[in-house]
Amino acid sequence: MTDPAQLAEQVIARCRKLASFSEDAGSLRRTFLSPPMRDVHQEIASWLEPLGMKVHIDAAGNLRAVYAAQGPSSRRLIIGSHLDTVPNAGAFDGILGVVIAIALLEALAGERLSYAIEIVGFSEEEGVRFGTPFIGSRALVGRLDESLLNARDSNGITVRRAITDFGLEPKEIPQAAIADDVCGYLEFHIEQGPVLDSLGLPLGVVEAIAGQSRLGFTFTGRANHAGTTPMNLRQDAMAATAEWITAVERHASTAPGLVATVGSVHASPGAVNVIAGQVRATLDVRHKEDGDRLGTVSCLTGFAKAIARRRMLIVSCTTNLNQPAVVMDPLLTNQVEEAIRKAGCTPHRMVSGAGHDAMILAEKVPAAMVFLRTPGGISHDPAESVSMDDVAKAIECGLHLLCQLSSSPKFQTRTFRA
Amino acid sequence: MTDPAQLAEQVIARCRKLASFSEDAGSLRRTFLSPPMRDVHQEIASWLEPLGMKVHIDAAGNLRAVYAAQGPSSRRLIIGSHLDTVPNAGAFDGILGVVIAIALLEALAGERLSYAIEIVGFSEEEGVRFGTPFIGSRALVGRLDESLLNARDSNGITVRRAITDFGLEPKEIPQAAIADDVCGYLEFHIEQGPVLDSLGLPLGVVEAIAGQSRLGFTFTGRANHAGTTPMNLRQDAMAATAEWITAVERHASTAPGLVATVGSVHASPGAVNVIAGQVRATLDVRHKEDGDRLGTVSCLTGFAKAIARRRMLIVSCTTNLNQPAVVMDPLLTNQVEEAIRKAGCTPHRMVSGAGHDAMILAEKVPAAMVFLRTPGGISHDPAESVSMDDVAKAIECGLHLLCQLSSSPKFQTRTFRA
Repeated sequence: MTDPAQLAEQVIARCRKLASFSEDAGSLRRTFLSPPMRDVHQEIASWLEPLGMKVHIDAAGNLRAVYAAQGPSSRRLIIGSHLDTVPNAGAFDGILGVVIAIALLEALAGERLSYAIEIVGFSEEEGVRFGTPFIGSRALVGRLDESLLNARDSNGITVRRAITDFGLEPKEIPQAAIADDVCGYLEFHIEQGPVLDSLGLPLGVVEAIAGQSRLGFTFTGRANHAGTTPMNLRQDAMAATAEWITAVERHASTAPGLVATVGSVHASPGAVNVIAGQVRATLDVRHKEDGDRLGTVSCLTGFAKAIARRRMLIVSCTTNLNQPAVVMDPLLTNQVEEAIRKAGCTPHRMVSGAGHDAMILAEKVPAAMVFLRTPGGISHDPAESVSMDDVAKAIECGLHLLCQLSSSPKFQTRTFRA
Repeated sequence: MTDPAQLAEQVIARCRKLASFSEDAGSLRRTFLSPPMRDVHQEIASWLEPLGMKVHIDAAGNLRAVYAAQGPSSRRLIIGSHLDTVPNAGAFDGILGVVIAIALLEALAGERLSYAIEIVGFSEEEGVRFGTPFIGSRALVGRLDESLLNARDSNGITVRRAITDFGLEPKEIPQAAIADDVCGYLEFHIEQGPVLDSLGLPLGVVEAIAGQSRLGFTFTGRANHAGTTPMNLRQDAMAATAEWITAVERHASTAPGLVATVGSVHASPGAVNVIAGQVRATLDVRHKEDGDRLGTVSCLTGFAKAIARRRMLIVSCTTNLNQPAVVMDPLLTNQVEEAIRKAGCTPHRMVSGAGHDAMILAEKVPAAMVFLRTPGGISHDPAESVSMDDVAKAIECGLHLLCQLSSSPKFQTRTFRA
């Protein structure tokens, strides 16, 4: 079976099958090295065996299997994504990228390329169990360090203990790291946003993963009686915060590619008949250019201060995350764009607002991502879906890409960042 | 001792003394018929005995004592306020009005007026223990009904049971109701707001108690990824709510005497990296004119709908309280104004944004209130205070008023509303 349409049908059926391996009854949750992860490993191994591939679970719990090159090539392309999920998850976030990678090898129908392909199913990307994401991909770039190994889940179990309990050996984590035989990383992933859907395009090529700033703001005014305090004698922290939120939205809407979100707001004392004395609000800002992002943060912080000053309030602000943007590899990105065109689609260059394993792999090797249209932009929800046609296009695109890279000496001599 | 300054000093000392009778160690909380209420009754009784007055606790837990008229008058003026407090209360909210009433009788130094004076210390006004306020004053107007008697506190104890446990007899509640011998109700109370303080005036005369509307609004958009959803494809419930809150504040600031407050806001899911899909917010609107208040509610609801429509959100709204304004008695109010002037102060006519026992008594008898300046507008807080000079002015005002009313045949023939 090498017809992309048939393979796409099988990809979706396989994703649905893997979604049945869950920690929760009635909904999908599969966190780092939880019992259903073992079922996922076995199921995937059963699909790889007919291709003559042997599955290995590395010490960080990543599923790995190599499809050998035509000759004695010392070069390798990794194609992967993550096997873990959020609670109440959909069936495609992460795992679709692994299942498409397998479909690509099946589509090759025994043909060998000038480089090897390693399939990687990362053990952890979502950060659900230990609060820190990318446990799997960090191991590949040599950053699954002591402090992360000692992180504890809500039951007090450390990452190290979870690894041991799964029958793996934490001491072997260094061997999970990739070496200079890896010349690239490719990841297929659902967009998890509404952009491709709103443009009517099946596939997107990611040129960067946006940098993120997360801040906490506290507006402090004076709690007072909602009935006895005239409007002109108030120091209303909620009204000040509301004015700021509208300014945040207005500002972010004017700059292309910028997103800024106030997702959490807590008013104290929070009673219907009491003017809020204090409001805590969060701010999330993302942009592909770190300078623009930091400039926006500075500007929005300035808005908060100006609003507070005019209203005789105090505002304080803490930065909780300042994560730089990650640029995808230009050569690979261009190749992806060409492959999307060859598959008969219009490639849409876009920035990923969400973090992905590709962001971590990009620290060491040239990385690229292909986004699949997400109907309604709905993700992290049981209603998450992907169309069979789009998966077929992704497979077509992938096959073109593998073929292009096989004949690209430039690709196979890319430098590994030690 | 009849010097207002000396009496004022004593009034403040007495309020501080009564504030020591608390359910909580280290802070003041005294709810309906709680054990410290008995201490308050005894303490007040010890001050009234030298005046030849006998304290009676009615079946609703109100402290009552009559200062007889000069002759065989069948007319009576009630002077009172409440003895209960909120948690973490100050020493003056409510109780100051009872202690000033006692000081007025002491200032009379045995002189008798053409009408009797009944001191009433209401058992409950704040609504803390049973969630429903005015238990004491409702008994006086015959509205302490079965449903309120069956209301339960957080320990499951009913009002009825609390009355019995205090050694009182619920069956005798009808006898607590006032009859047509009562020709007026007068209440001294701290303003609990910043108006008199900002005007630099010691005393205010309340011409109405504002009507109140309380509503709940729910803005429903779509929760989405803060990174992957461009600004123009969002249905952000928090941004919509913020726009509405600024509109509420702007609208209320343009109309004199109108206050509108959004005191409670809950965003769901409420995470830093998720666009809020739903926000619940409260609205509190007060005005002395019911038409203006209801018009404002309608207008602000319209704002919410228009904002939601433009942003492709849904908004729903429920009315939780619609309490009409209560006008104080014009004759009594004019007399209070004259008495304030005689005390050497500029009377400020004002609307009470907070509810008071006078609101309930006004259902049956002509009622009036005198507000005392509240430094910083701080109330329901241990920092709540009142200046000794202002209390002295209130006593002077009260004495002038009692004297004026004694010579006013019009006052003593006011009609009781059956």
